[in-house]
This record gives sequence, structure tokens and C-alpha cells, in this order.
Amino acid sequence: MPKLTHFDDAGRAAMVDVSAKDETERVAVARGRVVMAPETLALIQSGSAAKGDVLGVARLAGIMAAKRTSDLIPLCHPLMLSKVTVDLTPALPDAVEIEALVKLKGRTGVEMEALTAVTVAALTVYDMVKAVDRGMRIEGVRLVHKSGGKSGTYEAE
Amino acid sequence: MPKLTHFDDAGRAAMVDVSAKDETERVAVARGRVVMAPETLALIQSGSAAKGDVLGVARLAGIMAAKRTSDLIPLCHPLMLSKVTVDLTPALPDAVEIEALVKLKGRTGVEMEALTAVTVAALTVYDMVKAVDRGMRIEGVRLVHKSGGKSGTYEAE
Amino acid sequence: MPKLTHFDDAGRAAMVDVSAKDETERVAVARGRVVMAPETLALIQSGSAAKGDVLGVARLAGIMAAKRTSDLIPLCHPLMLSKVTVDLTPALPDAVEIEALVKLKGRTGVEMEALTAVTVAALTVYDMVKAVDRGMRIEGVRLVHKSGGKSGTYEAE
Amino acid sequence: MPKLTHFDDAGRAAMVDVSAKDETERVAVARGRVVMAPETLALIQSGSAAKGDVLGVARLAGIMAAKRTSDLIPLCHPLMLSKVTVDLTPALPDAVEIEALVKLKGRTGVEMEALTAVTVAALTVYDMVKAVDRGMRIEGVRLVHKSGGKSGTYEAE
Amino acid sequence: MPKLTHFDDAGRAAMVDVSAKDETERVAVARGRVVMAPETLALIQSGSAAKGDVLGVARLAGIMAAKRTSDLIPLCHPLMLSKVTVDLTPALPDAVEIEALVKLKGRTGVEMEALTAVTVAALTVYDMVKAVDRGMRIEGVRLVHKSGGKSGTYEAE
Amino acid sequence: MPKLTHFDDAGRAAMVDVSAKDETERVAVARGRVVMAPETLALIQSGSAAKGDVLGVARLAGIMAAKRTSDLIPLCHPLMLSKVTVDLTPALPDAVEIEALVKLKGRTGVEMEALTAVTVAALTVYDMVKAVDRGMRIEGVRLVHKSGGKSGTYEAE
Repeated sequence: MPKLTHFDDAGRAAMVDVSAKDETERVAVARGRVVMAPETLALIQSGSAAKGDVLGVARLAGIMAAKRTSDLIPLCHPLMLSKVTVDLTPALPDAVEIEALVKLKGRTGVEMEALTAVTVAALTVYDMVKAVDRGMRIEGVRLVHKSGGKSGTYEAE
Repeated sequence: MPKLTHFDDAGRAAMVDVSAKDETERVAVARGRVVMAPETLALIQSGSAAKGDVLGVARLAGIMAAKRTSDLIPLCHPLMLSKVTVDLTPALPDAVEIEALVKLKGRTGVEMEALTAVTVAALTVYDMVKAVDRGMRIEGVRLVHKSGGKSGTYEAE
Repeated sequence: MPKLTHFDDAGRAAMVDVSAKDETERVAVARGRVVMAPETLALIQSGSAAKGDVLGVARLAGIMAAKRTSDLIPLCHPLMLSKVTVDLTPALPDAVEIEALVKLKGRTGVEMEALTAVTVAALTVYDMVKAVDRGMRIEGVRLVHKSGGKSGTYEAE
Repeated sequence: MPKLTHFDDAGRAAMVDVSAKDETERVAVARGRVVMAPETLALIQSGSAAKGDVLGVARLAGIMAAKRTSDLIPLCHPLMLSKVTVDLTPALPDAVEIEALVKLKGRTGVEMEALTAVTVAALTVYDMVKAVDRGMRIEGVRLVHKSGGKSGTYEAE
Repeated sequence: MPKLTHFDDAGRAAMVDVSAKDETERVAVARGRVVMAPETLALIQSGSAAKGDVLGVARLAGIMAAKRTSDLIPLCHPLMLSKVTVDLTPALPDAVEIEALVKLKGRTGVEMEALTAVTVAALTVYDMVKAVDRGMRIEGVRLVHKSGGKSGTYEAE
Repeated sequence: MPKLTHFDDAGRAAMVDVSAKDETERVAVARGRVVMAPETLALIQSGSAAKGDVLGVARLAGIMAAKRTSDLIPLCHPLMLSKVTVDLTPALPDAVEIEALVKLKGRTGVEMEALTAVTVAALTVYDMVKAVDRGMRIEGVRLVHKSGGKSGTYEAE
């Protein structure tokens, strides 16, 4: 059975040693979506034009959250991210698609940073629209690309 | 068309005034799940017994994240939460179900705190197991119960 | 000579006792501005329409910073703010005017929260435009209104 | 018209890619001042000797804030600062002058860190003295020196 | 055998419900000390006068840390502290004694806040003097007084 | 008399310049213990098996706190830690021994990170057991090993 890297042989959680890893350029891309009523999406889209930029606020929240990842995820290493982008795209009739890209020149991958950016952007969409639609759901949050480091490139789709 | 409460008439984002709201007991329950390969779930379950407590670490991360919600979600009010619980349950054959309950005696609801606890617990599960299964997905994150405050009780399912 | 409230008789800094103060509604309004080259302001204004919303990003940064005030200012009390708004207005030919309003139902004033919101919004404007204008200056950051609490209402202008 | 670097072609905010930049020694110096009533300055000066060290507390707050810059300014990169100094000097008859110097061996400039140190030190002076002088103003916060990196050395005065 | 309050019947950690507790005035006092070489203490004492105020910096660090307690201690409730004082006193020949007092009008005790203030103040003393004395030890950190709340008053010594 | 490195010649606190230091592998190990009633230790040990994992929660709190060190200790540099482990071991009849190891490839030592991990783990043990034993004490927190950097290797015991 494979071993979980975040535990030692006695099963104790640890922040694992990455000092022997190469400092390479690492990229991760994650995606997810917020599913909502079609009228909620229409409201968000009308707002993007003039009456309140839900997607702009969520983008910023996602970017800022990527920088907080090691504060939130107990065994993540603190990292000096070189780049973070978060895109939110209306997907008719009833969803907002979210994609985050994170880049680092460093010793460990940035999947968690990309996934954190996606989920916090999704939570922010939820927060800003919840007064009109409590039934929204965050779905399909997953890693879609990862490159750099010893484990090579991963493509999910 | 309904109005988004987090924007003023000119479409500017704001942290809305809750000072006129009653201080009542407010509860929110959110749920979500991490879907994974059946072998990954088996690994997590074996670990819970002795070799590394993935679910215990994720529970703690979720509780701590609930307290950080107003740092992460731009327009959330800072709150003095009275109670936070996070439960993670293996759901055979291929998922971990997560439920968070948050309670407050205060002037605004705690949905975002419950949803934040669920997503950060889910991200932590992902982090701890990602070395053996990069294809995991976070699915179905939603509010299932909310009570207290003027808008009354909401039950999703 | 008046005494500084943040020090005890021996000159030691302390977070002073506010437990005997009344829980009243407290409001503070602060203002400041970023002075820049006229072309820089033109660039910001063109961006607000379509190519990058400097003022929207700065507004959000100011709101979030208000919530972090007690983390930044050593002797400030942690507070559960009820409302925060930050407005940024182009002031032709060469400035962005910033005004922040903070409201609290609590035992201590919120001047520092309003001033922190203004300065962090100003710093964010600087950050986003610094590549084209390093000579910008933050000027005139001050309290313009304060009400609630024993010391009564203060109006600066 | 010049382009704002913090936005992509569609006007979406992003934390821009610095991974291709050289790792050089970068220095930034920022200045600002708190203008106050002459009696307020006298009070601060008497305190520095024995009864409460306003300037010492503000210096520390400024240094600590420099380390929090990427938490506060949405699109700033997290950085491992190598040096931070903050000096506060009484400027008779009615001001405290503040200067911050920040140094980094890294891929991006540290202007925002120096400016953040100055403004938080200024806010801390305000906080500690506000009970005796609500009319204080923070003025003239600007970058005075910047070196390292592709854009070369900048001297403001 | 008594039950640990931070775990439910299945042994799962939780932030326990305090919403039914009374909002009373709660006080906690904690103490501890940093033991060092006599020459190190002499150095600190000389510095307090003019050459660098170790105890003043440590006092401030302790006060600020009290406000961060719920970020650090996983199951602590976020609290709006009403008062925090930290005193550091040279204890000849070879120690600095630290005492922190924390006060709250609220639903849960503030022991952890007082203990956190003492330990972070102690760590800060260590940090500032470690270049001349690596053998310092933090000793005797304990609660000495607690009042308010259902469990009544506790006096340790 | 030796000079304290965290102050300049005028006695002003500063975050000292480490940019000229070599980037080497640095390790620090710190230890401490929580002394308690024998029945309290028995309770913790029984819990570790099934009814609530005090030591597991404290381990995680210690690891997360190591990452927050530069937020807590005013003049500590922000660092990208490569490894953090925290071990808590029951020491019959009446103590829990704590050891933290921190590793970094960087320009400054990690003693403060190791000491912070030990103290926050100790505080967390206290928090989780305080309802049954208010008389616990944190004792003997000290550096036991340090290597890397110009000052060479230090062994305390």
C-alpha cells in the first residue's frame, strides 16, 4: 500500500522536508464552478457591466487566498508565489466557471495554492449572491494541470 | 430584478450595515465531499486507525478556517463564533463526506463560515493524499441548514 | 500636561481597559487622497470603464484592511465591525480622493479602522499604477467625523 | 497610452509573473510625516524620554507591517525581506517625520513594503496620541529611493 | 474519569459551544520567566535605559500575540479582548519575570490569551538576546489568577 | 559589553540585514515540556488511543505556528521553511515532552521557529486539558541544537 507523505512511520503528521528538491519552475492550474439558478447568473452578468462586479471581487479574493494557502492548509509549505491569475467565466445557463493558475520558482508544487484560489473565489461568489439564491453549489473543484518538479507533468483533461 | 446586497446603488462593493439587526442565535450547516479512487479511501481509512489521521488533520483545518472566514471572503463581517464542529465521514466506495456546523449569537448569519470550514477541510484532505491520487475532486459544497435572523429557517434537503 | 492613554504611569504601553465603556453605536469617517500626474489619473479613469478597475481593487483592499486593523496597530482592540464602505473618486486634474466610513456597535471608537481603510486603499492605488508614475504621494489622511461614545461627536470640516 | 501591469488585456486584475526577473538586491526607501499640534509633539517628545515611547511603538508597528504587505495589498507578491528599518524623528514644531528602508534579494521591488511600513507607523502614532489631538494628518507619503531590478535606480529628491 | 471538553463522545476535536454561557467580566493573569546568564540580564538592563529596549519590544509582542490567540490555538474562540497588559521585570541575578493580564466582557475565559501573551513576550526576549546567550530557557509559564464565569475564581499562588 | 544585534547604535529596534549571509542549510531543534498532575497525563494517554487526540492536535498547532513565527516575533525575518516536525511524548508520571525540528535552506537561522513550535504546542496541550487541571506549567523551553550558518553548530545537551 502506498504511503502518505505527510505522515512519518509512526503516523505523526509533519511538514515534509523539501530542502533536497530542485528549485524549478512549477505551474499548477485548477478549476471548479459555482452552479446556480439561471436568474442568478443573469443577475451576476448584468452586474458585471455596471451594477456591482461580483466576478471582479471573487477574482481578487481568489488571488489573495492563494497567498494565504500555507496559513490555511496545515502541512503546506510557505511559498513565494511568482504569479497568480484567477478567471471567472459565466457558463450559460447556470454556472460560473473558475480557473486559477499559480506559478513558482521553488522546491515544491503549487497545486494547493491553485485549488485554494478556486475555492475561495467560489465561496466569494456564493457570499455575494447568497441573498438571492441559497441553493448554489460549488462543484468539480480539481487539478487540471501540473508541471515542474520530479513527478513530471500531469494533465487531467 | 433583485438587488445584490453587497453593492450600493452605484455598484460599489461594501461591507453592509448589520448594526440594526437583532442579536439572535444563528446556526448554519454546510456539506460537501471529496471524491477519490476507492484505493485512496481505503488508504485514508487504514490511516485513521494507526498510520496517520488524515480526517483528524482535515477536521482541525476546517475548524481553524471557519475562524478566518472574514479574512478570506472580502465582504464578510468579523464574527465571534460560539461553536464550530466539522465531521468527515468515509462514504464507501469513493468519497469522504464533510459536514460543518457553526453557531453564533450575533447580528449576521454564519453560512460563509460553515462553507469555508467544509472547503478548507476538503482541501486539506486533498493535500494529504495528493501524492497517491491527483484526480480527486471536491463536489457538492452547499448550505443545508440555516436558522436565526430575519430570513428565517432554510433547509436544503 | 495631558496623559497618553496607551501608557500606564510607568510609561509602559498597554491595550487599555474598555470594559466599563458603554456599548453604543459608533461611526468614524476618514479621508485622504493620492496625488499623481494628470496622465496617471486619466489612465485610471479609462481603466475604470473597461481595461482594469484600479479603484474597485483599491476599494476592496481598504474594506479588508479595516478588518485587520487590530492586527496592524499594536494597541487597537479587536472589534466586530458592523459596516465598512470605502469610496474612491477621481478629483481632476491630478488626484484620487478616498473616503472610508466604519460603523460599530461596541465599546470603543473606530477611527483607526477608518484611517487604516483609507491608507491601504491609497497604497493599493499606488501599487497598481506605480509602473507608470513613481512620484505619486499620499496626502491629507485625517479623521473627518466621529460619533458615539463618551467623547461625543467630532467634525473636522 | 501606457498599460497598467496589474491587469491583463481584458482588464482583469492579476498577480503578475515575476519568475523571469533576475534575483538581485533591491532596496526601497519611503517617507511620510504625521502633522500635529505643537503641544502634541511636545508630549510625544517628553514621553520618549520616560513616560511612554510613542515612537518606539510606532517603529515596531511599521517593521511588522512591512512583513504583512502581501496580505494587505491584493496584487503584491509575498517576499522574504532581508532588512527593514523604520525611523521616526520629531520635526519641530509640529510633525513626526518617518522613513522606512526595506531590502530584499529577490525578483521584485520592495517599494510597497517601504510605503506600508511608513503608513502603519504613521497610523500607530495617530492611535497613541489621538486622545489629545484628533486633528492630526498623515502627509507626504512617497517613495524617495529605489534601486535594483531592470528599471534601475530612482531618486525622488 | 473526567471528560475533555474539546472532544465529543467519539473523540473528535471541536470548538465547543459557549453560546449558553453568561456574558460576564472575565480576567486571567499568567506568569512565566526567561532564565539567562547574569551578564545577559545586565545587558538587557543597560539597554532599557538607552541602547535598545528589549523589554519594551517584548511587551508589545506579548500584547499583539494575545489578540492572535484564536489564530494559534486551534480550538480557542475568537474574542474581543477589552484589556491586555504585559509586564516584564528584571529579577536579579538571572531572569526576566513576565506577567500578563487579560480582561474580557464575554462568554468564555481568557486564560489562553494571558498564557499566549506571556510565552510570546518570552520568545521575543529570547530572539533579541539570542546572539549573546543561546542557553536561555523559558520556565514556569502558568496561570496564576482567573475570575468570572461559572467555574469561579482560581488563585494559584 | 556585547552588542544586541536587533538594535542600531542609537538603540532603535530593526530587522537586521541578512542579505549578505550565505544561503546554507540550517537546522534548529528546540524542546520543552508541560508538567501536570499524573491523572491529567493518564487522561491524555487514554485519549490518544481513542477518545480525543490531545497530542495530535497540539502537534498540528505547533507545526502551523512555526510558519507564523515572523508574524508573532517582531524582528524575525519571514522564511520559507523546508521542514517542520513536532513530537509530543508522554513522560511518566507527570509531563508531556515536546520537541520541534525546523529546517531551512536560507540566510538566517530557525531557532525562533523551533521555539515557537514548542511553545504553541505546549499552549495547545494546556488549552485542551485546562478544564481538568488548571495548575499545569510550561517548563524548560530551550534550544538544544542549531546548525548551519556562520556561527556553526550549537549543542545544548
